[in-house]
Amino acid sequence: MSANQPTDLLGRIYAEWTVEFEANPEMSLQLLRWVFEDWQRATTEPEGVTYQTTSIGGVPGIRVTPLDADPAQILLVLHGGGFALGSSSSHRKLAGHLARACGATAFVLDFRLAPEHPYPAQIEDTLAVYRALLADGFSPADVTFVGDSAGASIAIASVLRLRDEGEPLPGRVATMSPWLDMENSGTTIETNDDTDFLIAREGLQGNIDRYLSGGASPTHPLVNPLYADFTGFPPLYIVASDAESLFHDAQRLDALARAAGVDVTFAVGEGMQHVYPLQAGNLPEADQAIADLAAWYTNTRKDN
Amino acid sequence: MSANQPTDLLGRIYAEWTVEFEANPEMSLQLLRWVFEDWQRATTEPEGVTYQTTSIGGVPGIRVTPLDADPAQILLVLHGGGFALGSSSSHRKLAGHLARACGATAFVLDFRLAPEHPYPAQIEDTLAVYRALLADGFSPADVTFVGDSAGASIAIASVLRLRDEGEPLPGRVATMSPWLDMENSGTTIETNDDTDFLIAREGLQGNIDRYLSGGASPTHPLVNPLYADFTGFPPLYIVASDAESLFHDAQRLDALARAAGVDVTFAVGEGMQHVYPLQAGNLPEADQAIADLAAWYTNTRKDN
Repeated sequence: MSANQPTDLLGRIYAEWTVEFEANPEMSLQLLRWVFEDWQRATTEPEGVTYQTTSIGGVPGIRVTPLDADPAQILLVLHGGGFALGSSSSHRKLAGHLARACGATAFVLDFRLAPEHPYPAQIEDTLAVYRALLADGFSPADVTFVGDSAGASIAIASVLRLRDEGEPLPGRVATMSPWLDMENSGTTIETNDDTDFLIAREGLQGNIDRYLSGGASPTHPLVNPLYADFTGFPPLYIVASDAESLFHDAQRLDALARAAGVDVTFAVGEGMQHVYPLQAGNLPEADQAIADLAAWYTNTRKDN
Repeated sequence: MSANQPTDLLGRIYAEWTVEFEANPEMSLQLLRWVFEDWQRATTEPEGVTYQTTSIGGVPGIRVTPLDADPAQILLVLHGGGFALGSSSSHRKLAGHLARACGATAFVLDFRLAPEHPYPAQIEDTLAVYRALLADGFSPADVTFVGDSAGASIAIASVLRLRDEGEPLPGRVATMSPWLDMENSGTTIETNDDTDFLIAREGLQGNIDRYLSGGASPTHPLVNPLYADFTGFPPLYIVASDAESLFHDAQRLDALARAAGVDVTFAVGEGMQHVYPLQAGNLPEADQAIADLAAWYTNTRKDN
C-alpha cells in the first residue's frame, strides 16, 4: 500500500480495490475475480468496433472486429490477472483499442484459470486457438500474440513451445507490464512499492501458488520465461512503466531476449500504473502507448 | 435462498452471488457493486453493434449503435440494481440486443446511484437526458424509455413527472421485472421464494433504505408508482416471470395502468429468473422475450 495518492483513473481503481483487499484479508477467489472484472472500468468503449461471443479451437472468448479491420490479421489477446483472474470481458475494450490501432481483428481468449486449471492449461488453450487459426487459413505472420501481466507469460511461453515443437511462429509478440518471475524475486516490487497501487509480493505469491498448484517448478523455462532461451523468438515489444512493481521483470525480459538476438523494442512509460494501456481513451499516455505499439506492429509487418 | 437448483445461466449466477452474500453478511457497498457488475456475464455480445463512451445532457453512459439502426430512434435504458447497483457496463449488451431487435439506437445512462444520491437524483438524470435529446431534435415519439427492476421505477416515475409538468411524453415505456413497491409488501416475495435465486425481502429493504435516505416517503407516487395515477401514460410493456419474487409488482402495475386506460401489454415468462431477458443470446426464452418486446415496439410505432 502506497503513501502516495493516485493521479490517474487506474491508480484510483487499484486504490479502491486495495481498500477492500485490506478490509477482507480472507476474500474468496470468487469475490477476487469479481473485483478484477472492474479492470474494464479503466477503458472507454473504442468506437467503430463490433464483438461476437464465440470460440476458436474450442476455447471460448470474444472476437473483436473494428469496422475497417483487415480480416486476415488477428491479435490473440492473453489477458492479465495472475493466471487466475481477469477475463475476455475485463480486456474486451483494451483489445478493441489495440485492434483498431493496428488495423487488425482480435480474439480475447477465456483460457482456463488457475488454480482449478494450473499450468500448462493456459498455454494449451492458447496453442489450441493458434493452431485452429492456422488450420482456418491464417498466415502465421498475420497472427500476433499480445499479453499483459500474466498474459505476457502465457504469450511468451506459448511461442517458446511452438519453437521447441518446430511449428510455425506467429509474426510478433507484444507484451504490456509482463509478469514472468515465478520466484517472486523482482527488486522493483520493493523499490516501486510507493508508486504502484496494485502489486505487492504477497498477492503475487498467491497467484504463483495457484498457477503452480499442479506441481510445476517455478524455474521451468515455460513457467518462468526468465529461465528460457529466446533464440529464434519473433520480434518482441515490451511496454511497462518505470514506476510499477513489476518493472524489473520487463527489464530482465528485455536484456534476456536482446542477448539472444531477438528484435526487441522496449517502451517505458514514466510514472504509470501496472498495465497502464488499460486506460485507453481516458489517459493520453495510454493512448500514446497504444499508438506506439501499433506503429511497431506496422513496422514489423513491413519488414516481413 | 431456494432449495431448488437453478436451471439456467442467470439462476446459476444469482446462486453464486448468494453464496458470497451469505458468507459475507456485512459485505461493503463497493463489493456489492462489483458483484452486481457480474450481471453482464448473462448476456452474449450482440453482433453488429458499436459503442461509444459519452454523455448526453451531462449524464455519462454508453451510446449503443447497431450498424443498421435508424439514428432517429433511441431507447433510453435505465438499468436495474435497486437504484444503488448496476451500471451502463452491466447492461450494455442487453441494450445492444434490444436496440438491434427494435432497429433503434440506445443510450444506457449512468444515473447517479443511491445512497450517495437518493431519490430523486435518478429521475432528474433521466429527464436531463430526455430533454437534451428533444433539444437535439429527437421527436418524443421516437424516444422509448426502457427499464428493468428499479430501472422500471425510474422510467415510469420520469414519465409521470413529464406528464405532471406538461412536457411532451416519450412514445412508449417498456419494463422488465419492474420493482416499484417501496413498502416491500409484495406477496410473491414469499410465494416465489423457492424459484427466485436472487431476490429476498431483506435485500430489497436495503435498497429501499438507500433510495429513501434523503427522506422521501415510500408511498409518494413518484417513489412508488403503485400509488400513482397513470392517466395519460403512453403505451406500456411489461415482461416478468411468474416464478420471480417481484411478480406481484408486475401484476399490480398491469392492473393499475390498465384501469387508468393505458395501452398495456403484459408478457409473462414461465419459470424464469428476475430480468430474464439479460440472458439474450444464451437462452431461447430470453431471445423470445426480446423479440416480443421488439414486435410491440414496432406495433406501437405503426399506431402513431
